[in-house]
Amino acid sequence: MDKLEKLSFQQVVKRLERFEFEHFQNYRAMYSSWLGGIVTDPALMVIPVDDHMVHRGDGVFEALKCVRGKIYLLEEHLNRLHTSAEMIQLERPLSQEDLKDAILQTIRASGVSDCVIRLYISRGPGDFSPRPDQSIGSQLYIVITDEKPKSPEKYEKGCLVLTSSIPVKKTFFANVKSCNYLPNVLMKKEAVDAGVDYTISIDEKGFIGEGGTENIGIISQENEFLVPGFDRILRGTTLVRIMDLARELVDQGELKGIRQTGLKPEDAYQAREMLIFGTTTGVLPAVLYDGRTIGTGKPGKFQRLFQKLLTEDMTGNASSLTPVYPV
Amino acid sequence: MDKLEKLSFQQVVKRLERFEFEHFQNYRAMYSSWLGGIVTDPALMVIPVDDHMVHRGDGVFEALKCVRGKIYLLEEHLNRLHTSAEMIQLERPLSQEDLKDAILQTIRASGVSDCVIRLYISRGPGDFSPRPDQSIGSQLYIVITDEKPKSPEKYEKGCLVLTSSIPVKKTFFANVKSCNYLPNVLMKKEAVDAGVDYTISIDEKGFIGEGGTENIGIISQENEFLVPGFDRILRGTTLVRIMDLARELVDQGELKGIRQTGLKPEDAYQAREMLIFGTTTGVLPAVLYDGRTIGTGKPGKFQRLFQKLLTEDMTGNASSLTPVYPV
Repeated sequence: MDKLEKLSFQQVVKRLERFEFEHFQNYRAMYSSWLGGIVTDPALMVIPVDDHMVHRGDGVFEALKCVRGKIYLLEEHLNRLHTSAEMIQLERPLSQEDLKDAILQTIRASGVSDCVIRLYISRGPGDFSPRPDQSIGSQLYIVITDEKPKSPEKYEKGCLVLTSSIPVKKTFFANVKSCNYLPNVLMKKEAVDAGVDYTISIDEKGFIGEGGTENIGIISQENEFLVPGFDRILRGTTLVRIMDLARELVDQGELKGIRQTGLKPEDAYQAREMLIFGTTTGVLPAVLYDGRTIGTGKPGKFQRLFQKLLTEDMTGNASSLTPVYPV
Repeated sequence: MDKLEKLSFQQVVKRLERFEFEHFQNYRAMYSSWLGGIVTDPALMVIPVDDHMVHRGDGVFEALKCVRGKIYLLEEHLNRLHTSAEMIQLERPLSQEDLKDAILQTIRASGVSDCVIRLYISRGPGDFSPRPDQSIGSQLYIVITDEKPKSPEKYEKGCLVLTSSIPVKKTFFANVKSCNYLPNVLMKKEAVDAGVDYTISIDEKGFIGEGGTENIGIISQENEFLVPGFDRILRGTTLVRIMDLARELVDQGELKGIRQTGLKPEDAYQAREMLIFGTTTGVLPAVLYDGRTIGTGKPGKFQRLFQKLLTEDMTGNASSLTPVYPV
């Protein structure tokens, strides 16, 4: 191959200054504890290659939504981040309060009101070994991006889903939201390659697990809202919230009950509705699963009711929302 | 917390210029396809935070040794990198020949003759989703560092090892050398916390797996060299090479045979010798395993013979070596 160019410090700086990529338009701000501040130029949104998060996936993360200047379920996401960090004995560089403040400051620096917030706590840079004690200290990266436009079809026509052939994570690792997401990545690829919207994992005992980055639930023929137990799948913040909000529907007699239990694909095939839950997507209807029509084959009542509850909670319920900008 | 500083492009550049960390002294050069060249300033050894390798561990890697200006087992490592990339359907940014050339050029730019070479093929930057098709294209990073000084004690006195409590990877993922190394990371931490040198995984059926980044083998009382099968563990290049080199010892009547088979901890407890294999460490003797003395409790004959074969191969055998500098 051609001679590779040896770049001087100034040459690299010039290159970065001229870097322009289409996706950069969506990148609004990044706080980096390593750089010691907030950058808004996407070309500077970099991390040291020796950070153990890069070469070992040794870090934990969260993705949150900010809607009309208010962060949705901040406490819940920070609690899960805390749990993930504790599970892999990762020291947190900031207290929960300071982390919250750093998030608010980073969004303010971006100037946006509607965005996705991504939090990463990494083991930190120093050495390329897997040994956590070879790091100079854990780091925090906060990235603010625009939310990608949703495809209305998924809500209007419903989603196609398939059983995944990717091996499920071991229980311990399924419960850490770490940067070891290769099984999830391969599930996403599997869905794209198969021309469906999502694929769904099945555990060794044949029970439904989760989507690549989504939770799954069903409405049974008896109008029960059934969800897999959190022993094998990640505790999805949106799903947990919906399970809470949907109690209203039980009180109103719309739902017969809400229960966590082992679900087999057959239970979903015969369900009234099959639902997909995620932070960025909300509540989506699945209408075709492994080639079988679910319910009427169209989005159902509970998908609409659940999404309505979620939207109301996300825009109106003060207790779920953290304002970013002073009123 | 205090007000976070919003950094201008020039402020970041100034910070990077002044960055000085102890570990930077060992970092010699990095080729980055993203920057489009080779940098030798450690402060510039960065990768875009949106590269899927960073936030999902969606990348594969290899670590190789260069001894006295010659790369050891380059073909073997590149073949394994190729296999890892194929397994996760990761497009390689360069052909095998061009990759080899890029490695040689990066080492030459560093000017060193003894080093560790780390190769990373990442899914690439673009979007923070796990979806591989949201990347702008896979990237290549080649990092050249000094080899860390070895601790002679490990060779002279032998290593302490323990059975690990970290769940083993699923077969598919155990066979991809990907940046999903959290189980391996936790095994390293487990060893440090327990005050031993290495911990060793045990699979669901009770068979010995591997160390965090090492292979395990034993010499039985009958002088057989026994090694776990490669169905559940990563195909270690050093171990594979030693299995090949050790045939000489079979011919000489020193070893009765070389065989891959399921090994239980009991087999190791009762072994004549227990050995640990790795790219950077070579062949190490384990003398205490789960508190049980192995063999005489001292490094044995085969550890010395195997290490000798390896050293000779690494310094003298032209067929295993790729010269970096023109003679």
